Amino acid sequence: MNNITVPTLLLDEQKCRANIRFMAEKAAASSVSFRPHFKTHQSAAIGEWFREAGVNKITVSSFRMAEYFAEAGWTDILVAFPVNILEWERINLLSGKIRLSILAEEEEGISFLSQKIQNELNVYIKIDAGYHRSGIYFNDHKSISRVIGSIKQTANMTFAGFLTHAGNSYKARGKDEVLRVHNESTSRMASLAEKYRTGNPQLIVSVGDTPSCSLAGNFRMVDEIRPGNFVFYDYTQVVIGSCKAENVAVAMACPVVSVHPGRNELVIYGGSIHFAKDSVVNRDGRVVHGAVVNSDGMLWNGITEGAWLTKLSQEHGIVELPDNLVNAYKPGDIITIIPAHSCTTANLMKEYLTSDGTMISCFTF
Amino acid sequence: MNNITVPTLLLDEQKCRANIRFMAEKAAASSVSFRPHFKTHQSAAIGEWFREAGVNKITVSSFRMAEYFAEAGWTDILVAFPVNILEWERINLLSGKIRLSILAEEEEGISFLSQKIQNELNVYIKIDAGYHRSGIYFNDHKSISRVIGSIKQTANMTFAGFLTHAGNSYKARGKDEVLRVHNESTSRMASLAEKYRTGNPQLIVSVGDTPSCSLAGNFRMVDEIRPGNFVFYDYTQVVIGSCKAENVAVAMACPVVSVHPGRNELVIYGGSIHFAKDSVVNRDGRVVHGAVVNSDGMLWNGITEGAWLTKLSQEHGIVELPDNLVNAYKPGDIITIIPAHSCTTANLMKEYLTSDGTMISCFTF
Repeated sequence: MNNITVPTLLLDEQKCRANIRFMAEKAAASSVSFRPHFKTHQSAAIGEWFREAGVNKITVSSFRMAEYFAEAGWTDILVAFPVNILEWERINLLSGKIRLSILAEEEEGISFLSQKIQNELNVYIKIDAGYHRSGIYFNDHKSISRVIGSIKQTANMTFAGFLTHAGNSYKARGKDEVLRVHNESTSRMASLAEKYRTGNPQLIVSVGDTPSCSLAGNFRMVDEIRPGNFVFYDYTQVVIGSCKAENVAVAMACPVVSVHPGRNELVIYGGSIHFAKDSVVNRDGRVVHGAVVNSDGMLWNGITEGAWLTKLSQEHGIVELPDNLVNAYKPGDIITIIPAHSCTTANLMKEYLTSDGTMISCFTF
Repeated sequence: MNNITVPTLLLDEQKCRANIRFMAEKAAASSVSFRPHFKTHQSAAIGEWFREAGVNKITVSSFRMAEYFAEAGWTDILVAFPVNILEWERINLLSGKIRLSILAEEEEGISFLSQKIQNELNVYIKIDAGYHRSGIYFNDHKSISRVIGSIKQTANMTFAGFLTHAGNSYKARGKDEVLRVHNESTSRMASLAEKYRTGNPQLIVSVGDTPSCSLAGNFRMVDEIRPGNFVFYDYTQVVIGSCKAENVAVAMACPVVSVHPGRNELVIYGGSIHFAKDSVVNRDGRVVHGAVVNSDGMLWNGITEGAWLTKLSQEHGIVELPDNLVNAYKPGDIITIIPAHSCTTANLMKEYLTSDGTMISCFTF
C-alpha cells in the first residue's frame, strides 16, 4: 500500500467477478432474465465484466446514467426510477439510439409524454408490493388498469409489465426474514400478473433487491431480476445475511492521522465525503458506518473483531478499536474498512483501485 | 425554472455575499484575523466574493483542496485537518509556492515530517477544548509542551499557536446554549495561550464553528476565526438558531416524479447522491434531511410550514406535506428544499446555478 496517500476505494476484481458469476448463474438456473442494476458500480469497465458473464441488458437509475452506458455500447437499458417527464428531450435522444425502458405510475406523466415522444418506449408500471416508497399499491387495480390503458392508447408505447423493488428486505435480518419479505412481495406480483395476463400475454414481472436475489433458492414466480448491490456487497449486506464478509469486493483504504489510546479511538482521513453517511446497526446494536477488515496488502480478508467506523464528519472518520488493537496503529498507517453502503461510497469516490494497480473510473453526472 | 430538468443546487448570490460581509465585518469589529473555511463552498469563483470583502487568508480541509485554491491565487492557506504525513510530497510542492499552515497533534508526525520538509511550514497545534473528536486535551500540558518542543526543534517549522473546533456547538439549541459552549471553549483556549505566551509571544488562538461565530457578540478572547458553513448556512443552522431561514443562500430544486395523496407524500428526483444523508431533528422532533421553502422563480423566501424532506435513498427523496399542500404538486413540478447540511450537499452537487443563470463550478478531488 506504499502508493496510497489519500482515501482510496479498493476493488478486489476476483471477488467482484465471482459475485457477478454467482448471480448470472442463479438467474440462468431459474431461466429468468437478468437485468442487473448498474447504479452501484456506475462504471463502463466493470460493465464489461458483466458482458463477459453473458449479460446484454441492464438497469440504471437516471437518464444521464443511461446515456453514459449507451455510450459504452449497451443497447437495452431500463431506467428504474419513476419517469421524470422534464427529461423528455433526453428520452427522445436515447430512445433513438437504444431500446429504452421507462417506469411509470402516473397517468398524467404518460399523457404528457404521449405528446412528446418520437420513438418506441417500453413502459413498466411501478408497483408498491409492500415497501411504500413509490409505485401504485399492488391491490389498487383501478389505478393500475387506468395506467395500462393510457400506455396502450399511446402510439410508440408498449406495456412491458410490472416492476417492484422490495426495499423492505433491507430491514430483514437473516435468510428466513428476507425470504418472508421476498415471498410476500413476489406472490403479490405474481397474482397481479395473473390478473392482467389475459389481455397482456407478454407482460413480465421484474423484481430487484440484493437481499432477496442473493438468498432466494429460485425465481420461479418472476420473469426478470434486477439486483445491483451484489456486485460489491457491503457491510449492510453482511449484517442482513445476504453475503459473507469475504464476498465484499470493495473496501476503503484510509490514512490514520491520529491515535487516542485513552478512548480507544483512531482519527482517520476518510469522512462523509468519502464514505457517505449511510449506517447500519451491527450485531452488537451499534450504529456504524463501516467495519475494519484484516488488511493483506491491496487485498483483505475477514472482519477485525470489535473495530468499527463509528463517526463521520466531512473529512474525519473515527474508528473505535478493541483494547488489544489500539496500539497497533500509528499516524501514517493505512486502515482498511468495508463501508456500510457500497453504492453511495462508490458514487462519492468515483474511481476504484484494483489489486494489480489499475485505476477504474466511473460515471459522473 | 423552465430550464431545470434534474436536481440542481441553486445559489442566491445576494444572500451569500451578505453572509460573507456579515462575518467579515464582525471579525473586523473585534480586530481578529478572519480566515474563513472554504470546505463549504469549495469554489474558486465564490472565493473571489470573499476577496472582494477583504479576505486574504483561508482555511481548507485537505491538501488537494489547498492545491486547488493555491492555483486560484490564494497565497496563505491553513489545512485544518490533522496532518496526513503520507502527503509530504504534496506539502513540499505547496509550501514552495504559498505560505502553508498545517495542524499537528502528534510528536511522531512532526518527527517524520522533520526528515522530509524542504520549505517553511507554519504549525498550529490542534486542541480538544471539549468536542472530543481530535486534538490534544486542553489541560494535557505535558503533551502540549512536548509537541511545541518538537516543532521548535525542527528547522523550517514555526509554532503558530493553538487551534480548536468547538463542534459541540452543533448540539446546542438557541443562542444561550451556543454561547455557553463557545465561552467554555474559548476560555479554555485563552488560559492555555496565557500559559504558553511567555515563551511564545507570537502564538495565536484560532477558533472556528459557525454557530459560535454567528452568535458571539465579540471575539475578544481569540485572535483568529475560521467559520465555513455561514457562507451558505443550511437548515441545521436554522434549527440551532445560528441564522434565520432567510439567510440560507443555497437550496436544491428537484423535479417531482410522483404524488401519493393517501400518505401526504411526494416522490422527488433528488436522493442521497444529491443531498447527502445528513439529517437534523427539527423543532417538531422529526428527523429531516431538509425543509421545503416557498419558491419564487429561481429564488425562495421562507420555510413552507410542515413540509419536510423525510427520507432519502440513492436517487429518490420523499417529501411529506401538510394536508392543504399535497394536491398543490404534480409530476413535472419543481420543489425547492434547503438541505440539512449545505457543505455535503455542495460537495455532491459540484456546481451552483445562480439566479441570473450563471453556473459556478467547484473543486473535485
